[in-house]
Amino acid sequence: MANPEPNGSPPVFDAAFRDQLDLLFRWRRDVRRFRPDAIAPEILDGLLQRAALSPSVGYSQPWRFVLVESAQRRAAVRADFLRCNAEALADYHGERARLYANLKLEGLDQAPVHLAVFTDHATATGHGLGRRTMPETLDYSTAMAIFALWLAARSQGIGVGWVSILTPAEIARILDVPDTWTLTAYLCVGYPAEEDDTPVLARVGWEEKDGEAGRLVRR
Amino acid sequence: MANPEPNGSPPVFDAAFRDQLDLLFRWRRDVRRFRPDAIAPEILDGLLQRAALSPSVGYSQPWRFVLVESAQRRAAVRADFLRCNAEALADYHGERARLYANLKLEGLDQAPVHLAVFTDHATATGHGLGRRTMPETLDYSTAMAIFALWLAARSQGIGVGWVSILTPAEIARILDVPDTWTLTAYLCVGYPAEEDDTPVLARVGWEEKDGEAGRLVRR
Repeated sequence: MANPEPNGSPPVFDAAFRDQLDLLFRWRRDVRRFRPDAIAPEILDGLLQRAALSPSVGYSQPWRFVLVESAQRRAAVRADFLRCNAEALADYHGERARLYANLKLEGLDQAPVHLAVFTDHATATGHGLGRRTMPETLDYSTAMAIFALWLAARSQGIGVGWVSILTPAEIARILDVPDTWTLTAYLCVGYPAEEDDTPVLARVGWEEKDGEAGRLVRR
Repeated sequence: MANPEPNGSPPVFDAAFRDQLDLLFRWRRDVRRFRPDAIAPEILDGLLQRAALSPSVGYSQPWRFVLVESAQRRAAVRADFLRCNAEALADYHGERARLYANLKLEGLDQAPVHLAVFTDHATATGHGLGRRTMPETLDYSTAMAIFALWLAARSQGIGVGWVSILTPAEIARILDVPDTWTLTAYLCVGYPAEEDDTPVLARVGWEEKDGEAGRLVRR
């Protein structure tokens, strides 16, 4: 048996903590406007350590973080976004197209930190446990790690914006990662220029709260 | 513009909260042994409300929660698990097979609450925004909602266990959900019979912490 030492006592969380946790869930936002202030390396490292505490299928820990520092690579990512975004705009018409054209869907030009997150589909870690019939749970593990990073960031006043209007294979090529890594997310990270407890897409009238999403179906 | 009213001031989280949040990340566990005590309906409802505060691509909110109460349906889900688990065991050999056979990989027999979580791939909510090139972000949104529910549950002393050793199409059939819903997770929810800050798969020697998973690659 590994680690036979007794651990500390299980924590008991009180109502005050849960109220704060609710505020964290409520004020986490997808941020697209950033202040230029840098994120200290030790703070970024701390965020990755929190992400690594996330659940993963069979304890596979398949998340891989790539810090994109090269101006040339950042420009190539941004070019891919602009291409994909123009194609997406062409799918909308009339008022919806006008709304779409006015959305700011990324903070690639402002965010001090660009963090690409990949899932390693060839990892031997976890020995394949739990993902034989649902291999996609490997990607879901990475998504949860991203959410942990996001919450930890917000708890320090740092904002995260998830950019998905990208060509995954092109981003993998630009960043020269192993063939077995697939892109899960491209994150912009930095101190937010504005804060709100309502999603921006609700604020600008793109979409409202979905009633069905909170409903419990019984079987 | 929707919702022009001013919101409250952005919360500032202090070091004491962040320490507690770290404990929450650290003591969240995939629980497979539950006490039989029921979860009050209003507590379960509160967990769903927290899950609904999660990020979703284009504000699509694609998560759909199915509370599985029927003993017959629960038995059918358990039969599918047993079939899938036997097939998975056959993939391992020697010491690894012995280890696998001794793992308890689900709490289906004990958990008072069975919660199946689906992703609605036909939802019009979000008007397709952000998922044209990465449609899988719809499923990732549901994975993040599950993690929010998981953290909210643990903050109330409630444990969650994610069962993925299942045939997704078979679970959808058993639960008679719309064709456009695909299974993301089958969750066992209840008060845990034991608590620990180390993943059980690490404790029993199945897998260790992956050094590469915490490493930052620079590009």
